[in-house]
Amino acid sequence: LTVLALGIEQVHDARVRIAPHAVRTPLLRNSALDAAAGGQVFIKAENLQTTGSFKFRGAMNRLLALSTEEIGRGVVAFSSGNHALAVAEAARFLGCTAVIIMPLDAPTVKVAGVRARGAEVIQYDRDRDDREAIAADLISARGLSLVHPFDDPFVIAGQGTAALEAVEQLKDDFNVDRVDQALICCSGGGLAAGWGMVIKYAFGEADIVTVEPDGFDDTARSLASGDWKSNERTAGTICDALQVSTPGKITLPLLLSQGAKGVTVTDEEVLAAMNFAASHLKLVLEPGGAAPLAAVLSGKVKTTRRTTLLIASGGNVDPAMLISSIDRGAT
Amino acid sequence: LTVLALGIEQVHDARVRIAPHAVRTPLLRNSALDAAAGGQVFIKAENLQTTGSFKFRGAMNRLLALSTEEIGRGVVAFSSGNHALAVAEAARFLGCTAVIIMPLDAPTVKVAGVRARGAEVIQYDRDRDDREAIAADLISARGLSLVHPFDDPFVIAGQGTAALEAVEQLKDDFNVDRVDQALICCSGGGLAAGWGMVIKYAFGEADIVTVEPDGFDDTARSLASGDWKSNERTAGTICDALQVSTPGKITLPLLLSQGAKGVTVTDEEVLAAMNFAASHLKLVLEPGGAAPLAAVLSGKVKTTRRTTLLIASGGNVDPAMLISSIDRGAT
Repeated sequence: LTVLALGIEQVHDARVRIAPHAVRTPLLRNSALDAAAGGQVFIKAENLQTTGSFKFRGAMNRLLALSTEEIGRGVVAFSSGNHALAVAEAARFLGCTAVIIMPLDAPTVKVAGVRARGAEVIQYDRDRDDREAIAADLISARGLSLVHPFDDPFVIAGQGTAALEAVEQLKDDFNVDRVDQALICCSGGGLAAGWGMVIKYAFGEADIVTVEPDGFDDTARSLASGDWKSNERTAGTICDALQVSTPGKITLPLLLSQGAKGVTVTDEEVLAAMNFAASHLKLVLEPGGAAPLAAVLSGKVKTTRRTTLLIASGGNVDPAMLISSIDRGAT
Repeated sequence: LTVLALGIEQVHDARVRIAPHAVRTPLLRNSALDAAAGGQVFIKAENLQTTGSFKFRGAMNRLLALSTEEIGRGVVAFSSGNHALAVAEAARFLGCTAVIIMPLDAPTVKVAGVRARGAEVIQYDRDRDDREAIAADLISARGLSLVHPFDDPFVIAGQGTAALEAVEQLKDDFNVDRVDQALICCSGGGLAAGWGMVIKYAFGEADIVTVEPDGFDDTARSLASGDWKSNERTAGTICDALQVSTPGKITLPLLLSQGAKGVTVTDEEVLAAMNFAASHLKLVLEPGGAAPLAAVLSGKVKTTRRTTLLIASGGNVDPAMLISSIDRGAT
């Protein structure tokens, strides 16, 4: 089953495949953040990626690995937004039809961005409808290929390419040859599993820590119990990108094999992190993209005298939400 | 007069000197910006520099070139904010006393940042007081060394290091070996002169274009006439960092020798550029830092089928101003 082959080699292959298309985003360090953390913190700024989030890496890698025939028939994806934008952009680049299934409560900026890229949008009710069933119908009716947001080896390998760059940048830009921990925001787990693979390969002793919103800690509980757990709620966090209800079939075993553990952050902590990002890092982050930073600033993970690598995974935020994060007074 | 030696060699020297301290900021490209410009646009993101602006480069280079005796006596600087933050940070690093003379209407975030770095702040009235006279008194009374915000070869060379990096990044990251024009925000002209030196050395045919706020176009008029012109107003633009009344004694001849020309942008165009930066680039820019981007987006310079390098020079903006730029609807 070559399609399931998934290791550091596949991440290297993904990197070569997407190199002409994806941005090699900067790895940043900031003295105010180091001071707040009491240690060294490095930020992989994937909000600066094409389409405003890391998702473009996995989507582009997946589409580039499809056959000419499959590209000719088109692709379908379900996503609250960032994966949708990424698939729409990758499809546009390849001249391929894309149908994106998005929840009705997806941020306006994300829905508009998908439509602007020429993709067809089908909206569904997060509580009432089954987005996977809608996708299955489209696949059988129109022969579309599913671009899964996380449970796909090509997608996971694609997301891992950001970690591969970060490992290089740590060495080349900062002369740092190990980290104590990597903090990765987590929904279905594709990013976390891809990063975990690369980070454990590069720094065997480093801790892999997933960050989820309070009440959406399916991955943290699944990692603690060793089995798939689900969230009770389907909505109710400002982290619109981190609401998947249970870890992936592929991603959870990978994260368990990496010894990953999970922490959670509150909406308030996320807003404070978005404020810190705008004030000190001069970066616009969306709520889900600020979750790992929130874990550092709120002390949910120990950073004192440790070297921490975190991802700032996306910056696609509606203006009102961004304003509410800035309008909190200085931090 | 070796102190006045100023050319590409001095920029290279500055780079070596400040390398352990300054951030090698990323050079970014963005598909939405390229589409808006109708050409290739590259952004040197100096809002991600230490202290939130390029000013740290020049200040650090100047302080590192002082003698141990001079460092022991301390330094003085006058600045509306970014140079103040930069000198305070450089002085803190070297354990040196710093006195910063700031206008009463400087952004709160900048005054607070200077004080947080342990510098002494003296505030003055922009209309009534002469900041250079206040500095002269301190120099004679306390033996402080002046760190001029722009009219100093070490400062100009330091600011040029950002352009040196950009030239390398164009080649290494994007395989681009020439630009048609470089757009640089301009107040006293230290940044523009340093960039012009490097850009003309690397790309002899490139146009050097300074960008100033409407009504504060002393450099544009000085470049057009070949002699020093002054602004009528001393305040009244949102670009708090771009209010110097006349070009420097060193900077104007340099800019004239580079064949530089000047354009201006309105407050509205600057706010629109700040909005674009937050929405599409995911960067927080202060008004002055967004001026070159505003020149592109407003069509003040021709960018169609051209390759444009611009600096996003700083991100130190008060929350209310940032919010007002975001709260304008999508662009």
